[in-house]
Amino acid sequence: MTAIIVFASPGQEELARDLAARLPASLGRLEIRSFPDGESYVRIDSPVDGCDAVIACGLDRPNSKIVPLLLLASALKEAGARRVVLAAPYLAYMRQDRAFRSGEAVSARILAHLLSSYFDGVVTVDPHLHRIHNLNELFAVGALAVAAAPALAEWILKNVGTPALVGPDSESEQWVSDVAGRVNCPYVVLDKIRRGDRDVEVSLPSSESLRGRTPVLIDDIVSTARTMIAATRHILHLGLPAPVCVGVHAIFSGDAFEELTGAGAGRIVTCNTVRHSSNAIDIRPLMAAAIADMLAS
Amino acid sequence: MTAIIVFASPGQEELARDLAARLPASLGRLEIRSFPDGESYVRIDSPVDGCDAVIACGLDRPNSKIVPLLLLASALKEAGARRVVLAAPYLAYMRQDRAFRSGEAVSARILAHLLSSYFDGVVTVDPHLHRIHNLNELFAVGALAVAAAPALAEWILKNVGTPALVGPDSESEQWVSDVAGRVNCPYVVLDKIRRGDRDVEVSLPSSESLRGRTPVLIDDIVSTARTMIAATRHILHLGLPAPVCVGVHAIFSGDAFEELTGAGAGRIVTCNTVRHSSNAIDIRPLMAAAIADMLAS
Repeated sequence: MTAIIVFASPGQEELARDLAARLPASLGRLEIRSFPDGESYVRIDSPVDGCDAVIACGLDRPNSKIVPLLLLASALKEAGARRVVLAAPYLAYMRQDRAFRSGEAVSARILAHLLSSYFDGVVTVDPHLHRIHNLNELFAVGALAVAAAPALAEWILKNVGTPALVGPDSESEQWVSDVAGRVNCPYVVLDKIRRGDRDVEVSLPSSESLRGRTPVLIDDIVSTARTMIAATRHILHLGLPAPVCVGVHAIFSGDAFEELTGAGAGRIVTCNTVRHSSNAIDIRPLMAAAIADMLAS
Repeated sequence: MTAIIVFASPGQEELARDLAARLPASLGRLEIRSFPDGESYVRIDSPVDGCDAVIACGLDRPNSKIVPLLLLASALKEAGARRVVLAAPYLAYMRQDRAFRSGEAVSARILAHLLSSYFDGVVTVDPHLHRIHNLNELFAVGALAVAAAPALAEWILKNVGTPALVGPDSESEQWVSDVAGRVNCPYVVLDKIRRGDRDVEVSLPSSESLRGRTPVLIDDIVSTARTMIAATRHILHLGLPAPVCVGVHAIFSGDAFEELTGAGAGRIVTCNTVRHSSNAIDIRPLMAAAIADMLAS
């Protein structure tokens, strides 16, 4: 069996340690630092010849992370690693999966092409795909998307007495209905109008199924949190209890988290795909299992 | 003849306008902005089908610039551009051209490979190559390095009465002797010991050739400016006049510029490859000519 070594991108040491412990695998040593001119220095300090290497690197706020990541992946290959796999709990740029206007860079395809050139496999959690149903339509190498739904359902079952799920928009229906099925509770999906990055209006088609239950708002990426904020206000306006807000990926740009709290949200919880104080749902056991599956093939 | 359109990476509008005017070429319209989550949005707003496209993008502080650059290059190809050329007055990552220690990422090769996958040609100014003598040993596509020496020589001839050039280290000798030959003045090369990014010691092997002349320190990349600061102090310590400091690339990390001024440097001038208040030597006519040469082939 090929030995597995997990390496941490800068700031991802805890993720790397956790994945290494769960696989199980050893933890690779490396030196990554910035020169005064802003360039990155990367040196691998563990033997990797003939091994499978896993790089732990969540890709939220991706632009400044990607060049050091490609340097590390290239250095691992150069040092003789058999396969190099990217473990990115959050995968960037998956939202722009087609040109909505002529001339647009289709960044989902471009990023997938780029990563496919440097990695032999990619494992992530719930990438935000709408029109593309499988990561393997984008990636030229093996790509596995871990579904967070079972972990979300398990958390809701343990922590919310009589829940009713609220999905943010029609695109999320399939996903929210999956979680609702696992929790065995009702769900509704909001009517949503997005006018810009930070301008979102929502309404509940019917609040009947929420009566007597705790509303649980669910979304995959919470970035500006405009959708959750608008939904929270709408729910409170209808005289319903403060909603529990559950997100997969805690991007929370700017003051989004504080604004969501200020809007009257109840407990706010997220998966540990992007490090944040709201992380409460551990997705790493599922990630480690997916990495092990990929490397066993 | 194929039409040429020049596009500006973010912050490089002035460079793009200048290159477009000199080629001559038209200036392309595009929309580049950041989403709240830190991802980039790129949309080309000029027809490019069958055209040659030039992207103006200096790559100092490169990590956060490269992903948007690759998105733009890919979108131009997707929109039908015949060739896409990178005009990077400063090309990053050229200093690590081999593994000095085992396990190091050879970033010069990795970056050249990356850019070769997205561009049909690259034009830059004096990349810092030591062991590799020609960009085409690194790049899989056409790569032209404009030599700044003629422009530096012209500036020194016009602005310094009786100069003597001082080169920073033995690696620079060939380059400094070239400029000295053009200026028709003597030169010396410092003995340099570098102990770290910011710890440099220099000494003049002989100060005879400097007597009665204005010392002109020359270096290609001025980043921490430790070499120029040490050389300036050494020259003043020997009782020689305050040196004129001439650099090609004005990286000036942190307070390097202020520290160089504070060390007693005379006038500090650089080429306009990296925007800085010290820019005084216009290298763009040579760049535009090199781009025109490349596209004519």
